[in-house]
Amino acid sequence: MSSLAIPTTASDSDLPVLYSYFRSSCSWRVRIALNLRKIKYEYRPINLLKSEHKTDEFRKISPFGFVPAYIDNKSGKTLIESISILEYLEEIYTESPLLPKEPAARAAVRTLVQAIATDIQPVANMRVLQYVGEEKKAEFAKHFIEEGFKAFEVLVQKTAGAFAFGESITMADVVIVPQVYNAVRFGVDMSLFPIISRLNRELSEIPEFQAAHPSCQIDCPDDLK
Amino acid sequence: MSSLAIPTTASDSDLPVLYSYFRSSCSWRVRIALNLRKIKYEYRPINLLKSEHKTDEFRKISPFGFVPAYIDNKSGKTLIESISILEYLEEIYTESPLLPKEPAARAAVRTLVQAIATDIQPVANMRVLQYVGEEKKAEFAKHFIEEGFKAFEVLVQKTAGAFAFGESITMADVVIVPQVYNAVRFGVDMSLFPIISRLNRELSEIPEFQAAHPSCQIDCPDDLK
Repeated sequence: MSSLAIPTTASDSDLPVLYSYFRSSCSWRVRIALNLRKIKYEYRPINLLKSEHKTDEFRKISPFGFVPAYIDNKSGKTLIESISILEYLEEIYTESPLLPKEPAARAAVRTLVQAIATDIQPVANMRVLQYVGEEKKAEFAKHFIEEGFKAFEVLVQKTAGAFAFGESITMADVVIVPQVYNAVRFGVDMSLFPIISRLNRELSEIPEFQAAHPSCQIDCPDDLK
Repeated sequence: MSSLAIPTTASDSDLPVLYSYFRSSCSWRVRIALNLRKIKYEYRPINLLKSEHKTDEFRKISPFGFVPAYIDNKSGKTLIESISILEYLEEIYTESPLLPKEPAARAAVRTLVQAIATDIQPVANMRVLQYVGEEKKAEFAKHFIEEGFKAFEVLVQKTAGAFAFGESITMADVVIVPQVYNAVRFGVDMSLFPIISRLNRELSEIPEFQAAHPSCQIDCPDDLK
């Protein structure tokens, strides 16, 4: 494939650009983090079902063909990998941190983040499930999300207050909500995970989280809104 | 299972503790990072083949049952998730950084790190391959490592100098070497990836990387040394 209908250069409007797919959980993380910082951005949809991520143009931006990709309006540089983007936003928008200050506390939040971003999401994402095949993919995804949430529930029990880590929103909250959405899609029984469920329910009431939801994105088909 | 022959408390020797398995690529990352900083540590082997990681005792340390786990000798706190441990070491041992200073450069290194730590390693690790089954696991691992290295080779071509990012060792180098070892184990043709191969070859000559190699660990069986 070699055609992409959307631009691949920085935004004329001087806003940062987010290449996103409405239902991509990694794009969703970045949307939440941008919203929490009140950063306006230009949304450029990449339709995974139409394989736009596999076009030559998009592969130049993101060699894996993954969303999100983020064009920073300050440096003009393009960033990929959602956690790397979250860490970058943390370093340049220092007035609205999503990590605590103290190293051991930061490590605890990053552990929650990595537990989802490394050990759950990548194993049950679209490209892996396509390889696993239509017949087995639902069971495969359910197995690894459930196994991961079992461990995550134990971890977050030690750290949770109003939010996943204490009394402020952190990067850990940012990754929980999209992962729960995926869990529900694959039929995971969320009643097994009362803390994750409580956090997801409460976080989902927050306007910045609501605005980042797949159903609120311009590329969400009308029948899913 | 509920018996573990090794201690689960902080070290009597006042050293940090690393729970490790000689061939675990995530443990290996932390061994390299500790060696590069000349941090001595107590090595506590967790034998994955004997399912020691699934014991009740070890699950209290690491709910996923994953190595590495790191007991910090300063705070007494136990950390899990290798990337979270690497970031923690970065924050407390500031005199020997493995990340550059400037945010966009840090993001570029973290992108390389996440590309391996998120998009390659977790998909082809032991627990996933066990689930995939004996018959298909080699092909599964080879497919995802090869696909991942194709993208990684493009990424690292833009950033590599003497090392993966420019002229100093970074976290990106720390994750490359263990992943190449896994690639070779699963029959990936490394001649397809000249930059990754060159980096791996040169990094493997560095004493701190050599000392972290599986064959140099106390739990490596004699026939693999």
